[in-house]
Amino acid sequence: MIERIQVTSEAREQLKDITSEVNAALRKVGVKDGVCLIFAAHTTAGIVVNENADPAVCFDMLDWLESAVPQSTPFRHEEGNSPAHIKATLVGQSASLPVEGGRLALGVWQGVFFAEFDGPRDRTVIVSVVAS
Amino acid sequence: MIERIQVTSEAREQLKDITSEVNAALRKVGVKDGVCLIFAAHTTAGIVVNENADPAVCFDMLDWLESAVPQSTPFRHEEGNSPAHIKATLVGQSASLPVEGGRLALGVWQGVFFAEFDGPRDRTVIVSVVAS
Amino acid sequence: MIERIQVTSEAREQLKDITSEVNAALRKVGVKDGVCLIFAAHTTAGIVVNENADPAVCFDMLDWLESAVPQSTPFRHEEGNSPAHIKATLVGQSASLPVEGGRLALGVWQGVFFAEFDGPRDRTVIVSVVAS
Repeated sequence: MIERIQVTSEAREQLKDITSEVNAALRKVGVKDGVCLIFAAHTTAGIVVNENADPAVCFDMLDWLESAVPQSTPFRHEEGNSPAHIKATLVGQSASLPVEGGRLALGVWQGVFFAEFDGPRDRTVIVSVVAS
Repeated sequence: MIERIQVTSEAREQLKDITSEVNAALRKVGVKDGVCLIFAAHTTAGIVVNENADPAVCFDMLDWLESAVPQSTPFRHEEGNSPAHIKATLVGQSASLPVEGGRLALGVWQGVFFAEFDGPRDRTVIVSVVAS
Repeated sequence: MIERIQVTSEAREQLKDITSEVNAALRKVGVKDGVCLIFAAHTTAGIVVNENADPAVCFDMLDWLESAVPQSTPFRHEEGNSPAHIKATLVGQSASLPVEGGRLALGVWQGVFFAEFDGPRDRTVIVSVVAS
């Protein structure tokens, strides 16, 4: 009951709505009630659950993260992308969501976003569903 | 095996202990061992697992979040509550806890808090339990 | 299907790789596919999933957290370890990971770390696995 979603990010940083892809994975799996884990199999990306009505919320979040963990800070990691690693840990590598009636039991304004912090890249999101 | 908890927050920002409500939902569900997902179905609220012995810890956490994501920062989202969205993502929309013997397997000092960042409001917490 | 891992931290702050301990717990439990919850039963420690190739990433993360939540900030909590509580909430008390073929389905560069913010101490990590 594991599905993989391929995500292509289009910028260095991006919150990309994957709600419909996750619901499609859920339908394949066929679990009616339980828990759905959405996991970014990467160290410079994460999963965010937040408002998908006004896109300004996503830009405000990326702006705030950039002000909190500036790209310009000196870091030891020689690849130079430590801020991306830190942002990924701050938002979290995964989201766990309740499943009800075969769909994500999201609030009215909630969507699921793939959080890219070191793109653009091809990425993999793992969806694992357990029935209750 | 999904239960809903109604939470009424009393302030714009509040960490409200819901540990006993979650344990009550667990008893209804009747799962002995497994995982309990506690999910805030909102975009300006989250779930925190932290100390419930000294209430000062909660106030310190809210103070720190306010200093890190000040209400006064200019944001694009016209509703003006972007800081609440960002704080919710920082603490996380959900907590997953081990269930053992029909109860949350919490550490001695741990409690489960509903984290309100845009109250006061009536809110819904979804509890989904999967047996191991 | 609950296992406990004993972790001894060696410093006040440390990200300690526990990936192999978690995989060992998984083998004991014998679940092939599903979800593995890794939970720090403490209020000043958490679980981080991030790069385990270059140790500099961990030091950069601890450095950034210290700059964001300085030990020197005045806090109400009289024990004086509020920054440790806040850091634990920022990284999260737990990680949920997909299990595939009896192993954690981690990305190539991902490892699981116990995040100590108030050590050195003896700590307990609870591993709860549910089959899909």
